[in-house]
Amino acid sequence: MNEKTLKNRAKSVRSFLRSKNLDGLILTSPENVTYITGFTGQDSWALIIGPRVYLLTDSRYTEQAQNECIGCRIIEHKAGLAKETAKIIARSKSIKTAAVEDNCTVAIFNELKKYIKPRLRTAAKIIESVRRKKDTYEIKAIQSAAKTAWQALAEALKKVKPGMTEYQLAGLLDFEIRKLGSQNSFDTIVAFGPNASRPHHQPTKKKLRKNDTILIDFGAKHNGYCSDLTRCFAVGKPTQFYQEVYHAVAQAQNAAIRKIRPGASIEEIDSAARNVIASFNLPVYGHGTGHGLGLLIHEAPKLAKNIKGSLNPGDVITIEPGIYIPGKLGVRIEDDILVTGSGRKILTADKRFTSHNLPLLKNPHQ
Amino acid sequence: MNEKTLKNRAKSVRSFLRSKNLDGLILTSPENVTYITGFTGQDSWALIIGPRVYLLTDSRYTEQAQNECIGCRIIEHKAGLAKETAKIIARSKSIKTAAVEDNCTVAIFNELKKYIKPRLRTAAKIIESVRRKKDTYEIKAIQSAAKTAWQALAEALKKVKPGMTEYQLAGLLDFEIRKLGSQNSFDTIVAFGPNASRPHHQPTKKKLRKNDTILIDFGAKHNGYCSDLTRCFAVGKPTQFYQEVYHAVAQAQNAAIRKIRPGASIEEIDSAARNVIASFNLPVYGHGTGHGLGLLIHEAPKLAKNIKGSLNPGDVITIEPGIYIPGKLGVRIEDDILVTGSGRKILTADKRFTSHNLPLLKNPHQ
Repeated sequence: MNEKTLKNRAKSVRSFLRSKNLDGLILTSPENVTYITGFTGQDSWALIIGPRVYLLTDSRYTEQAQNECIGCRIIEHKAGLAKETAKIIARSKSIKTAAVEDNCTVAIFNELKKYIKPRLRTAAKIIESVRRKKDTYEIKAIQSAAKTAWQALAEALKKVKPGMTEYQLAGLLDFEIRKLGSQNSFDTIVAFGPNASRPHHQPTKKKLRKNDTILIDFGAKHNGYCSDLTRCFAVGKPTQFYQEVYHAVAQAQNAAIRKIRPGASIEEIDSAARNVIASFNLPVYGHGTGHGLGLLIHEAPKLAKNIKGSLNPGDVITIEPGIYIPGKLGVRIEDDILVTGSGRKILTADKRFTSHNLPLLKNPHQ
Repeated sequence: MNEKTLKNRAKSVRSFLRSKNLDGLILTSPENVTYITGFTGQDSWALIIGPRVYLLTDSRYTEQAQNECIGCRIIEHKAGLAKETAKIIARSKSIKTAAVEDNCTVAIFNELKKYIKPRLRTAAKIIESVRRKKDTYEIKAIQSAAKTAWQALAEALKKVKPGMTEYQLAGLLDFEIRKLGSQNSFDTIVAFGPNASRPHHQPTKKKLRKNDTILIDFGAKHNGYCSDLTRCFAVGKPTQFYQEVYHAVAQAQNAAIRKIRPGASIEEIDSAARNVIASFNLPVYGHGTGHGLGLLIHEAPKLAKNIKGSLNPGDVITIEPGIYIPGKLGVRIEDDILVTGSGRKILTADKRFTSHNLPLLKNPHQ
């Protein structure tokens, strides 16, 4: 993280604060603390007060904070985060009204109110709204996170063989992610055959058959930023019906992606994917068509039915339509896309893993 | 999870609610929802109202909830959790005052206040205080979680060889945990040599040397319950000083564990470990001596300096003293211990991984 990036982020937040007549902001959620200070540890808060950004942490993290939080004042608290926050605010005579983000717990809010003298308000989604527009550093990080994910997937797929369990394949993939120095964005979903009909399936000890299908929904992180990918594979010979379903989902994803541009309505993108699936007389998925992602795996904007709003340059979103037939099959295809100034850029593009055709895995070990 | 266990938990909560003049409780934190309903999915709330326990979830999780939440009413919400909660409360005429736990966010509390007619209060740590006393199901789950962790560690250690990175060893260990159908309790810490002087070190690409030391702090889960273990190992020939430090930590841990019994003060246990290390003229650790664990990796009670209170039967705690010398070494040893009716039981006892003597790893692959 370079100092300029951090300064720009704080600047955007300060102009937001001025528009709300707020003199200071207390951040307690890890992802917002990371966004404003660069700090990637736990149990720490950030304060934005006048021209200064503070990181409040404890002795476990002081060394790490000194390396990560360029341009921030690092305070090692002893008496607790709320008391230390109150002390810093008390020293800044100019503060009449401070705010804490409303994603803090009621318990923390009550504790802060006890110690802080100036008026304390809650504020909704200030950092989240700034975070929605990804800067160059973030876009590169998401792209690197996708690259790591694909690399790990390519390695894991080499070891796929009938008889292995969903656990094993998920574990193998996670291991490859770790070997590349990365972490999972979320718990890897590996579903064989009909298990894929549950969109949030957790891996089981179900074994891969000689003729089977695999759904993998996973992601890797880079510098704290998430990628989120889903691909389906056939092992041995897929049924005609599975291929038709795959084709419909690929078409639906493509239709939604092609609608992505600044100003496009969320409604328009969401229904583009659903309409394709309906046109094949196949059941339309119950979940959203996509979601923003960044430091968290789910961020603004949400792309789903009945959601108003439109896309802006700097949005990074997933597009992930699916078809689910309980007891039979599940297919989902997911990529991460940047809304550019004039159109879109697929951040997860990779020649090895295009989504047009159902990838057939060979059975070298069978 | 059997129905009787869930019923007993709800019963304990109800008597707590009566003592506070509360007619209903809204649970929003995943671990408390799991505790009261058995549900292990995400994005769902639980309500305790009169004799009933409700689980509010969405279509992704209905099938899972029907399997997991024995004796609960499962409600599939469409219009949002807060509105659905308000609807259920509105139907229960007897409710004068309901509470939401104060670990919910300010945003959620404000939304609930908007929809709910009866008086809405916040309540602190109701479920947490019930959760502190572990029932038989939970103790068995933590023991199984420890068993899985040791099994995974034994497998991973077979593959240790000079030249491998911290990433690789952490990844290998996590892979073994996954292969056993389990998940990590938290991000695995693997630290080689001087890297272990940072208690919360994250794995790096540092390579293991021919003569080196390894600190591993990790855990596996079983049915949602965590284990939390730390062991140190020497590869090749450890220095005399490292062995002395190891010996001091092992003695300190043993001294603290021997103090564990119902009624023992936290102060007494904490200082037992610190005094041993001080008696060796070695630097005393800055972190706590231990913590409760269960559905979360950190639960009540906390064992640290200046913490008042004492142990009760049913507490499950870690004991994890350490010695850290920056640039030189770090040693920590950690086990999980149940406070029984008359004394203690080490839930992490395993013949392969006793802590008395520094384990020397052979270098079969060097």
